[in-house]
Amino acid sequence: MLKVFISTVPFAEKNHLPIDLLKALGIEFKVNPLERKLEEEELASLISDYDVLIAGTEPITEKVFSKAKKLRFISRVGIGLDNVDLLAAKKRGIKVSYTPDAPAPAVAELTIGLMLSLLRSIHLSNHQMHNKEWQRHFGRRIPDVTIGLIGVGRIGARVLRRLSAFGTPRILVNDLQPNKEIAPAFKLEWVGKEEIFKNADIVSLHLPLTNQTKNLVTSNELLMMKSDAMIINTSRGGIVNENDLAKVLQMNHLSGAAIDVFEKEPYDGKLCDIQNCLLTSHMGSMSVDCRIRMEVEATEEAIRFINNKELKALVPEDEYENQR
Amino acid sequence: MLKVFISTVPFAEKNHLPIDLLKALGIEFKVNPLERKLEEEELASLISDYDVLIAGTEPITEKVFSKAKKLRFISRVGIGLDNVDLLAAKKRGIKVSYTPDAPAPAVAELTIGLMLSLLRSIHLSNHQMHNKEWQRHFGRRIPDVTIGLIGVGRIGARVLRRLSAFGTPRILVNDLQPNKEIAPAFKLEWVGKEEIFKNADIVSLHLPLTNQTKNLVTSNELLMMKSDAMIINTSRGGIVNENDLAKVLQMNHLSGAAIDVFEKEPYDGKLCDIQNCLLTSHMGSMSVDCRIRMEVEATEEAIRFINNKELKALVPEDEYENQR
Repeated sequence: MLKVFISTVPFAEKNHLPIDLLKALGIEFKVNPLERKLEEEELASLISDYDVLIAGTEPITEKVFSKAKKLRFISRVGIGLDNVDLLAAKKRGIKVSYTPDAPAPAVAELTIGLMLSLLRSIHLSNHQMHNKEWQRHFGRRIPDVTIGLIGVGRIGARVLRRLSAFGTPRILVNDLQPNKEIAPAFKLEWVGKEEIFKNADIVSLHLPLTNQTKNLVTSNELLMMKSDAMIINTSRGGIVNENDLAKVLQMNHLSGAAIDVFEKEPYDGKLCDIQNCLLTSHMGSMSVDCRIRMEVEATEEAIRFINNKELKALVPEDEYENQR
Repeated sequence: MLKVFISTVPFAEKNHLPIDLLKALGIEFKVNPLERKLEEEELASLISDYDVLIAGTEPITEKVFSKAKKLRFISRVGIGLDNVDLLAAKKRGIKVSYTPDAPAPAVAELTIGLMLSLLRSIHLSNHQMHNKEWQRHFGRRIPDVTIGLIGVGRIGARVLRRLSAFGTPRILVNDLQPNKEIAPAFKLEWVGKEEIFKNADIVSLHLPLTNQTKNLVTSNELLMMKSDAMIINTSRGGIVNENDLAKVLQMNHLSGAAIDVFEKEPYDGKLCDIQNCLLTSHMGSMSVDCRIRMEVEATEEAIRFINNKELKALVPEDEYENQR
C-alpha cells in the first residue's frame, strides 16, 4: 500500500482524528520528526520513501521532487500554493489537492482582531501597561475609517461579512475580477490598487503569493499611503516587502502595521524591534476548529487518492497559470 | 455669569468644539491644570470658585462638596456615576447630568477587540515576537465558544450586535431585568450569574459600579470558571477584585483576562507582571468620535444649565437608588 509522509506542523495536536483515520485503514505513515517547518533540504532528505505527502508551507520544489522518486500525490493542509512548484509537479505527474475553504473563517476573524488592535492601540497600551506606563491612546472606530481590501475571495469576503456588524465604513476593494457573489450590508467601491493605497485608512491584503503579487507592497506603495494609515497582512510573507515596511515605519510614516506572515518563518527580523508593528506568528488558520477541518480534509483526500477514489479538491488550473 | 471648571482629561484635544462653544457664549471656564485625573483633595482645592463642573471620573465626594460652596451643577463626560456621591449632591441641591449613550459604541468595539485578542492570543504572540520567540498559538473562534455577558444595557446590547456577524456562539446573559429591546440574530439564554461563571468560555462585564456590583468577581467566582476560560472588564475597576484576579491567574487558572479599568488609575499593580493578562489604560470610550460626542454633549448640557434652559440628560432616579 502507498505510504504517507506528513510534513505539516502541528498535526493532529488538538484532535487525533486524522491519525485515527490513517491507522483505521492500516495506512503506513510518518510524521515530521523535527516538529517544525522543514527546510527544502530537510524535506528532500526525508521524502524519498513516500508516495503521498500531507504538506504544510515548507518548500516543495524541483529539488525535493528529484529525491522523491515515489511521490505521486500532495495533499496541502491549507489554501496557499506558493510553496509548491506546481508546474514541476505536473511535469512529473504528481497530483496536488488543497483545502481552500477550511482556513478562511479563522483568517477572517484574526484579521478583524488585528484591525481592532491597530485602531484602538490595544497592542501598544498592553506593552506600556506591562512596563507600568499609563498612556490613554485615542482610537478610531470602524465606521469612521476607510477600509481597503486587496483581494476579496474566500477570506476577503468573510472579512467584509464580519465588518458589516460594526456600522458602515467606506470600503474600497480591488481584485482581478469583481466578486459578484458578495452581497454585504454596505456599498463596495471597486477601484484600482493605487486608489486604495492613497485613500484607505486601513489596507488589508487577502491574496495568494504569486509572481504577480510578490513585492506588491514596497516603499513606493507604503509612502503612497496616508501618514496615519495602517496595513495588515495575513496572506503570505513576501507580498509586503518586510525591509521596506520596517524602513517606512521607522520614518514614522504609517501609524501602525499588523503582520502575521513572513518571507522566512520563524521570523526574527527588523520588524521585531518596532513597537507599532503588531506581530503574530502565522496564526491565521490556527483556530482549533479550522485547523482540525484542514487536517481532516487533507487526510481524507490523501485516503481517497490511496484508495483510487475520485478526488474532491484538486488544485484548479488557474493556480498553475499563476505560476507560469 | 456662572463659571465652569472642567476636570475631565483629555478635553477638546481632538476637536475644539466644546471650548469654542463656551468661548462663543462668553462663558468663563478653567481646564484642569494638572492634565491628569485629579485626586479628591486636588479637586477640592480647585473647585471653590466654580458654579458648574464638567467632570471626568475623579472622586466628587462630600469632601469636595464641602469646598465647593458655589457648585450647582455637574455635567459628567461619560456614563459611570460611581465617582459622584449622588446622594450628597442631591442634599446640597446640586443637579447632575451625564452622557449615557455617547461612549457605548466605542466601548463595545474595544470589547470585541479584546475578545479576539484573548481568543487568538494576539497579545501573547505580539509580546513573544518582539522578543524573537516564535510560538504558534492555537485559538478558538467566536462561534465555537460560549460567551457570557453580565449586563446587557447600552453597551452589552452593542457587543451582541457586533458578535452577530461572527456566526452563532452560545450566548448566556444576565441582568437585573431582561432587556426586551434586544433582537439579535441569535438566541439568548437568560440565566443566573453563577451559571455564567460556570459555563461561559468568555465572561464580559457591562455593568455600572455600585454597592451591589463592587467585588462582584472575587476568587470565588473566578475559581468557579472553567480552567481555560477568560474574563473581560471594560466597565469599571472594583467590579473585578484585582488582587484576586492576579492570584487566580498566577495559579494558572483561567487562560487569560483583559482589563481596561482599575480601582486606582493610573494602574501599576500586580497584573502588570502577568503576561496573559491583556491590559489597556481605560480606553473604552477613547475613540475620537465618541470622545468628541461625550464632550460636546456634556458641554451643551452645562450651557443649557447656565442659560436656564431645560436639561436633556439629568441622571435618572434609579442611579440615586443604586447608591442607597
